[in-house]
Amino acid sequence: MGLRQDVDVIVFDTFGTVVDWRGTIIRDFSAWGKKNGFELDWADFADRWRADYDPQKGRVRRGEIPWTPLDELNRQSLIKVMTQLGLSFSEQQIHYLNGVWSRLDPWADSVEGLYRLKKDFVIGPLSNGNVAMLLRMARHSNLPWDHMFSCEIYRHYKPDPETYLGVCETMRLAPERVMMCAAHNYDLSAARKCGLKTAFILRPTEYGENQTTDLEPTEDWDVVASGITGLADALHE
Amino acid sequence: MGLRQDVDVIVFDTFGTVVDWRGTIIRDFSAWGKKNGFELDWADFADRWRADYDPQKGRVRRGEIPWTPLDELNRQSLIKVMTQLGLSFSEQQIHYLNGVWSRLDPWADSVEGLYRLKKDFVIGPLSNGNVAMLLRMARHSNLPWDHMFSCEIYRHYKPDPETYLGVCETMRLAPERVMMCAAHNYDLSAARKCGLKTAFILRPTEYGENQTTDLEPTEDWDVVASGITGLADALHE
Repeated sequence: MGLRQDVDVIVFDTFGTVVDWRGTIIRDFSAWGKKNGFELDWADFADRWRADYDPQKGRVRRGEIPWTPLDELNRQSLIKVMTQLGLSFSEQQIHYLNGVWSRLDPWADSVEGLYRLKKDFVIGPLSNGNVAMLLRMARHSNLPWDHMFSCEIYRHYKPDPETYLGVCETMRLAPERVMMCAAHNYDLSAARKCGLKTAFILRPTEYGENQTTDLEPTEDWDVVASGITGLADALHE
Repeated sequence: MGLRQDVDVIVFDTFGTVVDWRGTIIRDFSAWGKKNGFELDWADFADRWRADYDPQKGRVRRGEIPWTPLDELNRQSLIKVMTQLGLSFSEQQIHYLNGVWSRLDPWADSVEGLYRLKKDFVIGPLSNGNVAMLLRMARHSNLPWDHMFSCEIYRHYKPDPETYLGVCETMRLAPERVMMCAAHNYDLSAARKCGLKTAFILRPTEYGENQTTDLEPTEDWDVVASGITGLADALHE
């Protein structure tokens, strides 16, 4: 394919593409709930929490509120869900629960795939997560990133072009030397508009068994793979 | 000493503290000169190049020129030295020579020391080098950084307080939870004024055999060690 020679850096969407946020939240909070006396439908809790993510990012992207790191946006959303459901967690409990974004487990293929890719490419998350969150997650889940290309560094959330172009500027590379890898078509579409190469990873259960979005590529992305090991296979062909 | 429990992140000055810039430039350029027909006193060349580093940074720090990444400042200084010495390198040769800052060899203790520290602390360079330069250096010299806390991210050169406080803000940590490690007293002095902990590494030949500066600690730094393995020993006591 020649892509191995044509690309120097691969940046990854993280939540959903590299780590399983929904599965981890359900497992982590179920275990925590048992110990702490909260019996809840944690899948519903995770979905409600996630549902407030795009609106929160939107407020930052439209300039309605100043730049706010994701762990603070998540914390505000968590408190909103807690209030909706009539729950009352202590400050310490909120701190623990919100920290789950640094405890997210990788999909089964992620760690092996990243180690293989790291041999030939600079790799890093281009995630809406802030640097400290991504760093703790990397250490928790053994993700061998070279550098956290966090949206926090560019003070813009994806899919703002400042994020994709920010990586190119940081690396002093033309956009076509950088590849964006994501399980979400909208993210790749925005990256392609900036001139980056694109890799789509199929994650059909990110939102659970009844997922309806991102079940297939909506454009002719440069690579389509069923996991990060599949991306490594494609780039090493 | 209790420091192991009191510190979460250690950031390192890089040029001189982790890698031997002067020795590498002399070795690298001597080999290159032989192949390319340039016979020169490369130690003198390295010293002249380095002598323009502080004035260049100063122009940025005083706002005389806008933020400029270090690889561009270095390139301008390299051309200045070339002109002083009546030399004429091609664009391609200048590109190769300026790239030496990404090929710098670590001191003998650096890699082992960093691997040991990484087990218990988040580690990264807080270097005037830009992210791309530090990333290439890390891959060249096997430096296991968690993240590049480059001054480029904070758009300020050391010893501006925005750099040290920037790391604390990125990590959402109080300054006393962060340690600055450097072979240069001025760097630690500026970090201490911001509230960071400090570690002095003795590098008595950074500037060659006749070095006159930084041969001893000028304040009671939290740790004083003769290498990065020594810092690991001190923190694991």
